[in-house]
Amino acid sequence: MSNHVREIPHPPADRLELAAILRTCGEPVRLAMIRTLAEAGTELKSGAVTGAVGLPTSTCSYHLKLLREAGVTRTRAAGTERYISLRRDDLEARFPGLVDVLLRG
Amino acid sequence: MSNHVREIPHPPADRLELAAILRTCGEPVRLAMIRTLAEAGTELKSGAVTGAVGLPTSTCSYHLKLLREAGVTRTRAAGTERYISLRRDDLEARFPGLVDVLLRG
Repeated sequence: MSNHVREIPHPPADRLELAAILRTCGEPVRLAMIRTLAEAGTELKSGAVTGAVGLPTSTCSYHLKLLREAGVTRTRAAGTERYISLRRDDLEARFPGLVDVLLRG
Repeated sequence: MSNHVREIPHPPADRLELAAILRTCGEPVRLAMIRTLAEAGTELKSGAVTGAVGLPTSTCSYHLKLLREAGVTRTRAAGTERYISLRRDDLEARFPGLVDVLLRG
């Protein structure tokens, strides 16, 4: 059995770009995903995020990919499972107040 | 001489939508326009906004239209002149902290 874990790319915290993050968060499904993850306060299986927004898995995978690529979320692979978390500390450090705006709006 | 002023439509403050605003602000030229208007602290002629970002007038008009339609800015017509202002109070009332994030980021 292999311990190989496929590397999932994430932008480092000091390379997060405000414009890209705003653009990515400015979509109701993705805002709902961010709020689901924030409420959980921990990583969630991708299926739990998908279940919370009530859309097809393929649609949700697309939105989760955009969130990860913008640096809003982190995706961790464990076997065939994907665990998603909000990069709350990274976002808060780089753009203070942004997460609160996203959660309150 | 006519006193007719063409009505320029703006979404009312209580109808501002976070997703639309984030999406609209998530573009470097539009962020630069928002910062120019915030620094001015008052309305600016559209030409002054255009001059600040250094892009063709037609491109800037397009970006200013999107900002107005999302409710981020207000456009006032006076003769052939257009005066642009940031709807800072409306934004702050509806999405506290958002403007600070946009200006700091």
